[in-house]
Amino acid sequence: MKIALAQLNYHIGNFEANQKKIITAIQQAVLEKADLIVFAELAIGGYPAKDLLRNAVFIEQCQRAVKEIAAHCDGIDCIIGAPLPNTSPEGKSLVNAAAYISKGEVVSVIAKSLLPDYDVFDEYRYFEPNRNTHCINIRGMKVALTICEDLWDDDQQNSYVGDLMQELALEKPDLIINIAASPFSYSHFQNRVNVLKRNVLKANAPLVYVNHVGAHTDIIFDGRSLALDKSGNIVAELHKFAEDLQYVEVLNSHITALPPPSVDVAKDTDIALIYEALILGLKDYFSKSGFKKAVLGLSGGIDSAVVAALAIEALGAENVLAVLMPSRYSSDHSLKDALDLVQNTGCGHLLLPIQDIAFTFENTLHKAFEGRNPDTTEENIQARIRGTLLMAISNKFGHILLNTSNKSEAAVGYGTLYGDMAGSLSVIGDVYKTQVFKLAEYINRDREIIPENTITKPPSAELRPDQKDSDSLPPYEILDSVLYQLIELEKSGSEIVHLGFDEQLVQRVARLVNNAEFKRFQAPPILRVSPKAFGPGRSIPLVARFPF
Amino acid sequence: MKIALAQLNYHIGNFEANQKKIITAIQQAVLEKADLIVFAELAIGGYPAKDLLRNAVFIEQCQRAVKEIAAHCDGIDCIIGAPLPNTSPEGKSLVNAAAYISKGEVVSVIAKSLLPDYDVFDEYRYFEPNRNTHCINIRGMKVALTICEDLWDDDQQNSYVGDLMQELALEKPDLIINIAASPFSYSHFQNRVNVLKRNVLKANAPLVYVNHVGAHTDIIFDGRSLALDKSGNIVAELHKFAEDLQYVEVLNSHITALPPPSVDVAKDTDIALIYEALILGLKDYFSKSGFKKAVLGLSGGIDSAVVAALAIEALGAENVLAVLMPSRYSSDHSLKDALDLVQNTGCGHLLLPIQDIAFTFENTLHKAFEGRNPDTTEENIQARIRGTLLMAISNKFGHILLNTSNKSEAAVGYGTLYGDMAGSLSVIGDVYKTQVFKLAEYINRDREIIPENTITKPPSAELRPDQKDSDSLPPYEILDSVLYQLIELEKSGSEIVHLGFDEQLVQRVARLVNNAEFKRFQAPPILRVSPKAFGPGRSIPLVARFPF
Repeated sequence: MKIALAQLNYHIGNFEANQKKIITAIQQAVLEKADLIVFAELAIGGYPAKDLLRNAVFIEQCQRAVKEIAAHCDGIDCIIGAPLPNTSPEGKSLVNAAAYISKGEVVSVIAKSLLPDYDVFDEYRYFEPNRNTHCINIRGMKVALTICEDLWDDDQQNSYVGDLMQELALEKPDLIINIAASPFSYSHFQNRVNVLKRNVLKANAPLVYVNHVGAHTDIIFDGRSLALDKSGNIVAELHKFAEDLQYVEVLNSHITALPPPSVDVAKDTDIALIYEALILGLKDYFSKSGFKKAVLGLSGGIDSAVVAALAIEALGAENVLAVLMPSRYSSDHSLKDALDLVQNTGCGHLLLPIQDIAFTFENTLHKAFEGRNPDTTEENIQARIRGTLLMAISNKFGHILLNTSNKSEAAVGYGTLYGDMAGSLSVIGDVYKTQVFKLAEYINRDREIIPENTITKPPSAELRPDQKDSDSLPPYEILDSVLYQLIELEKSGSEIVHLGFDEQLVQRVARLVNNAEFKRFQAPPILRVSPKAFGPGRSIPLVARFPF
Repeated sequence: MKIALAQLNYHIGNFEANQKKIITAIQQAVLEKADLIVFAELAIGGYPAKDLLRNAVFIEQCQRAVKEIAAHCDGIDCIIGAPLPNTSPEGKSLVNAAAYISKGEVVSVIAKSLLPDYDVFDEYRYFEPNRNTHCINIRGMKVALTICEDLWDDDQQNSYVGDLMQELALEKPDLIINIAASPFSYSHFQNRVNVLKRNVLKANAPLVYVNHVGAHTDIIFDGRSLALDKSGNIVAELHKFAEDLQYVEVLNSHITALPPPSVDVAKDTDIALIYEALILGLKDYFSKSGFKKAVLGLSGGIDSAVVAALAIEALGAENVLAVLMPSRYSSDHSLKDALDLVQNTGCGHLLLPIQDIAFTFENTLHKAFEGRNPDTTEENIQARIRGTLLMAISNKFGHILLNTSNKSEAAVGYGTLYGDMAGSLSVIGDVYKTQVFKLAEYINRDREIIPENTITKPPSAELRPDQKDSDSLPPYEILDSVLYQLIELEKSGSEIVHLGFDEQLVQRVARLVNNAEFKRFQAPPILRVSPKAFGPGRSIPLVARFPF
């Protein structure tokens, strides 16, 4: 059996565009004489469609799309993911289904058994699980047709009652097919391969795995669909961060890529993967929301420089406007460093000094603040003036404001709500400061895009004279290590102290993180590249006493 | 058997304060010679603790608290809700449990069977469901011990496989006990009574129902714990929006209140309930986060006037600072109306005209905007100047900024991100404009607090000359009706048109609502008073094609 793996970039709710793509892939697979074409989980409707799944019209459109696609399956079978009605009178009204189409009609519908409900996943909100799945027959082959999480029962993080693959293995499948919507994180691919391998060995059958590619606001799919032989070796890997259509041949439980894959390229570093993910995240955010141009504040510091470089790569220099907004506290080199980046890249720029506005704010507040010393209030006013100017440019010209906060400062609340925390999309809000430096070096791998001085000078918010980040924060190497334990590994403070970190330091960092929950609640959506990003996948009470 | 219903206001994660409260209630119930005291669902730890449930220290603290409370149960039995370890090796590591304590020890743990995963609920994220529940024996009485949603299988909105109460009814319980965390909405109480009544009739047994009271940022619990006889009549109802401890006697499947309840008071209107809920929401937000003072912008319009009046009632006039920030477009009456409210209530006020700052912004942007006509950009700048001034006051004096947007404008995006959408807490963001008017009348029920002119003048944002809301929006009566269908009832546009609404109007409103998702994503948390509020209970993709 010749199988086409169709790894496509869908647009949530854009049935017309998605359908066109799907049908084109089917036609191509027919030309290639494939017997079966496999699309991703919830390819119909897009993923994550969230509460659109509660909209009756959306669900009708999904059902209609499946029928119309089925009608195009002439001489080829097809497996495609869709939200379909639960045919049982009890439970939630939908199932997360894999529809098997043959001879132009849906001949079986397999519902997902294991529904993830952790991190960004909330599938119990919408779907009823399958409690009794079986292999299906596809052109004489016994296929364990599974949907993403169905293979992820690892009895640790994601523990489910029973053992789905063990049950399916009793039926001795010739092939496992898994259709997935498995988001990117820089450490996820190896996990994924391990999980798939475990299932392959359990069932003693080869596997075809088809993932989404593309970004939906915060969530980025890396593609990298796979075929594994029954020993768990990768026989085909589709492109990462790009659409792809590849073929495998399955014969007597042997699986081979058609044509055979080229020699393995060097393994990408985490930073290279993060870079590609952020580029795709930016591209798709703009193309899918129908915008072309971006604006951002360029301070001369490393965060905004990295975001500018990423935006320029994703959107083109002609579509990026950098706004330089020096204050009385900006150092001489800041403006020069920012202008050097403008010159290195050819992006547009505007110079809007904020001095005069800051003075008028001070005058207006003079009487109210009488007898009070300057404090972070005045620093925040400067940040909010910049936020207001950037939003004015955004409003006037229809440019999307990109936020330039990094994950370290988002974590400890080292940022001004409605000021530097403003923007429609946070580009590096899931990238720790120490990773931002590596990203800058990666961006400069071929030539200087980010000025050397931007990378080498000590980080500073420049909101008061001679301010440095290190005045109020621990060194980023240490801070980021503690944050990784707190955020990614969800360790409690005491557990981190047991690892050997200084107790006072951990207490201080944990307190800063807890106290900044209210700020992050109002932060823009963040492109997700780590195993645990701030945002909907991490849900913390705003008013509580926090454990340590 | 004499049963104490302990309806308390918990503070998430504040084990010390919660435990003190719980033990005091136990001691009081012992004095009253109660046999059993019943506390709410997840009384231990507080609800919703969200991802604190993933923190090892938090879970240890919960287990320790149960033990310590058990040690105080001398001569009295106790039922209390807590997140406890799942003793099965499979599935999620926690259950949402009711611990039955007798003779100072936990003698049974019943896990929740039906886990809600809709609106604000996401219990599958944390808990493994019970798949095999049974009645337990409490002092010779067979008790169907259930946890909140366990009674809410209504085969429509919340449909679960099987019929839990029918199964328990086969064991012929003498009593149903339900411990709950059932949030307030203005229409929820009647639903709740109907649901409880259905279960009582199914099991042919009386019921004791103990709910939370108190607010946790957005979520407000109204209390109103209940006892129902086996015919479904209410024999006891605890206070609404306040802590309460009451007693019932259960004897041979008869249940009576001790002492008998006073005569029924007149039924509250929805508006009166909303008023009380918002007051509790404000009070608890401040007391539980350790703040005392609030600041808000007072425009002379009805929204900020209502929020000011609510804050003054909740926090005291001496703790509320109203900031008047007239612009060149503010009408003469605005300032007067705002000052009248200040005079009526005795709250603090500050006058900070924004003219000068607005001019400096215009000058700074003059060159960049050359050749462009004024548009909403300039309106937004004014709103953001106000936001920045309010945040400056908040930062300098440590006052919490209250947001004053209503639900109608939050729905259609008629508000400025980082401007009038700023604030730590949205007080009336779940109250439609037409309800805001009723709330104003309710606030004035005894005397004029909100100036008459504020109520009677046509609503206007006053961001350009002679602007009125009705210039850009349909009349609020119509707008709110369409919004109610879209938001609360989750109808699709076409379904609403079928109800008889004008198609163009519905299309326009739906488009406005969809286009404002990105704004609401960054809005403050909203006090929830309706069956469907904006915020985490309503999750819509930011980048998508929307169905109609």
